[in-house]
Amino acid sequence: MKIVDFQILPVAFPDPPLRNSTGVHEPYALRTLIKLTTDDGFTGWGETYGGSQPIESLQAVQEVVLGADPFSLEALRLQIPEPRTYAGLEVACLDIMGQALGQPVYNLLGGKVRDPIEFAAYLFYHLDCPARGECLSPERMVEQGQALVREHGFTALKLKGGVLPPDEEIATLRLLRAEFGPDFRLRHDPNAIWSVETSIRVTNALEGVLEYMEDPTWGLEGMAEVNRNVNVPLSTNMCLTAFEHFPEAIRLHSVDVVLSDHHFWGGLRATQEMAKICETWGLGVSMHSNSHLGVSLAAMLHAAAATPRLTYACDTHYVWLEEDILVGGKPRFTDGYMSVPNGPGLGITVDEDAVARMGEDYVACGLTGRDDVGYMRKFVPDWEPLRPRW
Amino acid sequence: MKIVDFQILPVAFPDPPLRNSTGVHEPYALRTLIKLTTDDGFTGWGETYGGSQPIESLQAVQEVVLGADPFSLEALRLQIPEPRTYAGLEVACLDIMGQALGQPVYNLLGGKVRDPIEFAAYLFYHLDCPARGECLSPERMVEQGQALVREHGFTALKLKGGVLPPDEEIATLRLLRAEFGPDFRLRHDPNAIWSVETSIRVTNALEGVLEYMEDPTWGLEGMAEVNRNVNVPLSTNMCLTAFEHFPEAIRLHSVDVVLSDHHFWGGLRATQEMAKICETWGLGVSMHSNSHLGVSLAAMLHAAAATPRLTYACDTHYVWLEEDILVGGKPRFTDGYMSVPNGPGLGITVDEDAVARMGEDYVACGLTGRDDVGYMRKFVPDWEPLRPRW
Repeated sequence: MKIVDFQILPVAFPDPPLRNSTGVHEPYALRTLIKLTTDDGFTGWGETYGGSQPIESLQAVQEVVLGADPFSLEALRLQIPEPRTYAGLEVACLDIMGQALGQPVYNLLGGKVRDPIEFAAYLFYHLDCPARGECLSPERMVEQGQALVREHGFTALKLKGGVLPPDEEIATLRLLRAEFGPDFRLRHDPNAIWSVETSIRVTNALEGVLEYMEDPTWGLEGMAEVNRNVNVPLSTNMCLTAFEHFPEAIRLHSVDVVLSDHHFWGGLRATQEMAKICETWGLGVSMHSNSHLGVSLAAMLHAAAATPRLTYACDTHYVWLEEDILVGGKPRFTDGYMSVPNGPGLGITVDEDAVARMGEDYVACGLTGRDDVGYMRKFVPDWEPLRPRW
Repeated sequence: MKIVDFQILPVAFPDPPLRNSTGVHEPYALRTLIKLTTDDGFTGWGETYGGSQPIESLQAVQEVVLGADPFSLEALRLQIPEPRTYAGLEVACLDIMGQALGQPVYNLLGGKVRDPIEFAAYLFYHLDCPARGECLSPERMVEQGQALVREHGFTALKLKGGVLPPDEEIATLRLLRAEFGPDFRLRHDPNAIWSVETSIRVTNALEGVLEYMEDPTWGLEGMAEVNRNVNVPLSTNMCLTAFEHFPEAIRLHSVDVVLSDHHFWGGLRATQEMAKICETWGLGVSMHSNSHLGVSLAAMLHAAAATPRLTYACDTHYVWLEEDILVGGKPRFTDGYMSVPNGPGLGITVDEDAVARMGEDYVACGLTGRDDVGYMRKFVPDWEPLRPRW
């Protein structure tokens, strides 16, 4: 079987003005869809980051992809050593393999060990916007959490922090704890915006409140120093994001939990490999999420279903997405869980008209990359992306 | 799809009186074949160690295996945590999956990255036997090597050492080096029979002669001490044989090369996981072999074909096997390489009459386990399996 057509489809979709340590989300989030077609007429979908850089990286491997056998994943991985470029292509190949074989992708990854998959939704501080107003206080954040729990049944939430001064975020998490009770799992992710000293102080202040603290400070050394001085588990999707980071991260004991993300680890098989490394060294495994569409959602569900070492509910940004590109609309969370698609391949059907509309929006919106800093300056003209800020 | 029949088939086949550090091979080698049949009528073969203990371990999981879906490998692995018991079952499941899908097993492991597979045959000191006479000197070992190279074209050989006093083995390897020239790859495996001091002395004496030295001494600490004092890479299939050994082995830098062996690492997928760990920490990967039949040979070929991190020719004991259980007879080496089967599943057809005959031999030979020490005492009555001996 050979890949005979390789389409790179940039898309843009509305995104609320969500705050993070770097700045604020622009009005559109960008993604790139990948559509592969084989000489047998099978079509597979992949999805990766948006904007011109990922598109150029995919264009650069066009010669490698065209003519390749979608079953020869490892050979393709050797030819596309950049994990972010390979990842979306691997997902599209697995989608093709599964369809050709009449098997769901999870059965090409070792079979299901769990279904449905548990998720922890993101809590975001955000600027004023039509549907939601503004959310920049502990009280408004509790209301946001209440709405997410009411609508989707989550019993775990992650606060995207590093936005307000640390003591206000401590107050936010304590109010969430008081509201949702001692069994509800809370995570805090300030995206490495704190100094080591602030990280230690805030993390210790939140002992008993947090399930884990994610990336309080920057770098493997800094994280290790924080880790030596706190009892709350530390997690990361910033300082340990590639296989080559493992040796030093393990030597230093920088973290206790690694967030997988097939988009930057290099696909679903790579996600399983990193999880096995975590199992071998006794590290926990969670899953990272950012703005994405239904192709990546399906890929994440299959990876989560087939990866034994997944010790925490997966993060999900999906509740912030207004419209998706899947026939049948957005899959729903029930009691904070989502079912794994059981059809062949990824088990989804992509609405190509919706992709085309989002493709027009990509051109119309004029964005070619993510610039949370630049957009923040529309609201705070002298904004600087300090690290550490506190 | 469900497994509805699970046959455990003990077999025995003739083995020459091959010497090793422990003693000598008995007249029969034992193996256990696994035959799984599904409700759809697919049959898959696996193979593992022989004798009563592996049989009992397989019998103990019969309830878990019967009714299981062969595609649900990870779920089965979670239920059968002993890697040696799971490994042969995984191979049989992959054989079924491949047949059901019309795909060779390597395509269920990420596809081929190499074919044919390069092998390094074993050189054995051995006692007197009809077809071969005796081989206990450097000169006779060179003749053995010449015959292996002439017949199969190997350009790499591994001396199973720890048999003669170290200086005689040094002399053997130097004579092999002189005979086969500087580009021929030679390995030495004394099976951890030397003290740290002897290991350092012998390994340094063989610098420039060996591709690597395998398990000169016992344990991760001892190997690490040797490693600090030699320039020849150290390999192992004795001190690092399970995922739980990795953290200490890496911390101590006990070895440079790990020999995979799906029989004890827990299957073909586990072999790929251990290889990825080796890649991540910059360790080389080779492959171990002991007395086995064609089912394991096929499994090894598929694993070798689909595992990117395989940095050395695979060991092979297969040249010492007189008859196999495959329809079509023993696959051949060409220039030291063997082709990967391309048919569905393992790509082999098992001759069940041959299995039945070897099953009768299993009963007739009266052996229920491997006892190289006890058999050695027939020749040297006061033999003791010392470690270290030198």
